[in-house]
Amino acid sequence: MAAYSLLMLPGDGIGPEVMRQVRRVIDWMARRRDLEFTVSEGLVGGCAIDAYGVPLSDETMAQALAADAVLLGAVGGPKWDGVSFDKRPEAGLLRLRKEMELFANLRPAVVFDALVDASTLKPEVVRGLDIMIVRELTGGVYFGEPRGIEDLGNGIRRGVNTQVYTTPEIQRVARVAFELARKRGNKVCSCEKRNVMESGLLWNQDVTALHAAEYKDVELSHMLADAAAMQLVRNPKQFDVIVTDNLFGDILSDEAAMLTGSIGMLPSASLGAADANGRRKALYEPVHGSAPDIAGRDVANPIASLLSFGMALRYSFDRSEEADLLDKAVQNVLKGGMRTADIMSPGMARCSTSVMGDSILREL
Amino acid sequence: MAAYSLLMLPGDGIGPEVMRQVRRVIDWMARRRDLEFTVSEGLVGGCAIDAYGVPLSDETMAQALAADAVLLGAVGGPKWDGVSFDKRPEAGLLRLRKEMELFANLRPAVVFDALVDASTLKPEVVRGLDIMIVRELTGGVYFGEPRGIEDLGNGIRRGVNTQVYTTPEIQRVARVAFELARKRGNKVCSCEKRNVMESGLLWNQDVTALHAAEYKDVELSHMLADAAAMQLVRNPKQFDVIVTDNLFGDILSDEAAMLTGSIGMLPSASLGAADANGRRKALYEPVHGSAPDIAGRDVANPIASLLSFGMALRYSFDRSEEADLLDKAVQNVLKGGMRTADIMSPGMARCSTSVMGDSILREL
Ligand SMILES: CC(C)[C@H](C(=O)O)[C@@H](O)C(=O)O
Ligand SMILES: CC(C)[C@H](C(=O)O)[C@@H](O)C(=O)O
Repeated sequence: MAAYSLLMLPGDGIGPEVMRQVRRVIDWMARRRDLEFTVSEGLVGGCAIDAYGVPLSDETMAQALAADAVLLGAVGGPKWDGVSFDKRPEAGLLRLRKEMELFANLRPAVVFDALVDASTLKPEVVRGLDIMIVRELTGGVYFGEPRGIEDLGNGIRRGVNTQVYTTPEIQRVARVAFELARKRGNKVCSCEKRNVMESGLLWNQDVTALHAAEYKDVELSHMLADAAAMQLVRNPKQFDVIVTDNLFGDILSDEAAMLTGSIGMLPSASLGAADANGRRKALYEPVHGSAPDIAGRDVANPIASLLSFGMALRYSFDRSEEADLLDKAVQNVLKGGMRTADIMSPGMARCSTSVMGDSILREL
Repeated sequence: MAAYSLLMLPGDGIGPEVMRQVRRVIDWMARRRDLEFTVSEGLVGGCAIDAYGVPLSDETMAQALAADAVLLGAVGGPKWDGVSFDKRPEAGLLRLRKEMELFANLRPAVVFDALVDASTLKPEVVRGLDIMIVRELTGGVYFGEPRGIEDLGNGIRRGVNTQVYTTPEIQRVARVAFELARKRGNKVCSCEKRNVMESGLLWNQDVTALHAAEYKDVELSHMLADAAAMQLVRNPKQFDVIVTDNLFGDILSDEAAMLTGSIGMLPSASLGAADANGRRKALYEPVHGSAPDIAGRDVANPIASLLSFGMALRYSFDRSEEADLLDKAVQNVLKGGMRTADIMSPGMARCSTSVMGDSILREL
């Protein structure tokens, strides 16, 4: 069996400490489950700015392109607030997404039984919640040209970005959503602002046409993005798979994540197109950010990063058995009462990042 | 005393029936509170398409420009789904906003004590919630050029919209937010995606500079729009005034509205610049939509429209005493247990649109 190449990019803030726990689980999988990995590490975000003056070096970019999967921690922090727009930490992440062509970002919003009470929503509204948001990740206003800030003189400036989508871009991400829906609740809700934006109208029409041509067995609905922001609060369990563009996906997936009350638990996968061998470029990262306020104190929750590696096992290495093992281990540890600070509640046992890692390894 | 001119545009769906209740309150104010109004009516949205073939006629546009205040119901519905993009019902509303230059959209998200349980959020999270969202309403991706759908051949199309803001556009809406904050909790949170969009970076810098130059007494914070979508769910009471652009404002204000659990209660005001006499062009409308599914059945909640007229009394006619009267009447009716279907809960008295109107008039 050939070894899978993994590139770890811990990044900034709590990134390194949560990724340390991931590393332990990778090693466990290699030792115990007949999986071979060659693991390398690199810098992205603020730490790469500090080291190389850019948020992602060409060398690291090349490594990412060559890897079977990239595992990312988090990027950014107030330390780099003064950095120019094109050199900011986030530019490293955006470059990875763009050059790896990771057009489909899968963001599950799942409520863990043991953590129902962590949500600010009433338990009956969120218990059993299981939404998969498929966010387009390499197009739209994130990358559209023209863009920039222009000086008009007299202290007046003009800032421009361009929202742009083409039919193939819309189709390929919608395809991912339909395929995923078939393995879940078989429902896709597509969100845009077709009543205001032509790019949203095109999105709506292209998703509708693809559905009619190839996915009639899946139930398709359309919702305006503002209405979706409402419905996520009013009745989130109505959704199965949501497919939407880069910017709406950014906002709606964060909103959905917070419904669960435990964003420190949520993983994500960013996938590219399948090649002739069915392999996809892929990057896995927690939904949470770099949380600079708690960095380096061994209190962050490593579970989102661990479950992101679980998604890698599932989507990149076709090892759903191992992914299930990991999911199960996490659930058991939660059932046992272990809690990092972010998901702590009365009567539970508060633990550190590394002790949470210990417990999950023990459970495995 | 000169009469104020009011233009009523009931629009589609439940618009006409809720506006009928508003008309009764207008007449009451005229009779009992020494206010003189000349009221005219017009068509906007789907009903205007049916009558004139356009969602807003030039005559109605001219009337709106001449009026002291416009009161709008709601526009749109499935009946006009097949209408071309430039003739759709929403285009009527967008034309009003643009030609009246209503750049500041005020959307309160308030939880009424009597309705705390209507929220899907835990009572302790939303009790006493009182946020004012100031949304930029005449710029950004809603109106930016170039825009449109281009045919690239071979079944491939390209949809484009342009997000664009200039310093004066940002400053004038931020000014409204700072001024409002001074009369409330004295805090403004400005939201954008400066980490991704240059237009957001400009927004951030211009708000920061205006604050430093003129509003240092107000507490200013900045939050990424995705983080704001989270924080609204996690801890909405941290916010006082939120200022943001047209598209983020559309989504965040709908999310915030739904936190209250009673979107049928929420009014909005859209304001233009003050002229030499301190008068502003203004349009008032409920936050809810045209709800075609319940239209014509006398079950819709008229309170959002009534409170929108309350905002007109406050912002256009400088009659906060009368606005307070109306607010008070609404609160008393709710305390008395009257509920339209949308806010019904066990033990309360379910009533129709018109009976809700009766009760509020009686309370006045
Ligand atoms: C860090 C930032 C560029 C990024 C985004 O806006 O996509 C983040 O918010 C995310 O959702 O992954
Ligand atoms: C009807 C539509 C054009 C409108 C908007 O997107 O602005 C609505 O959603 C609103 O928020 O007033």
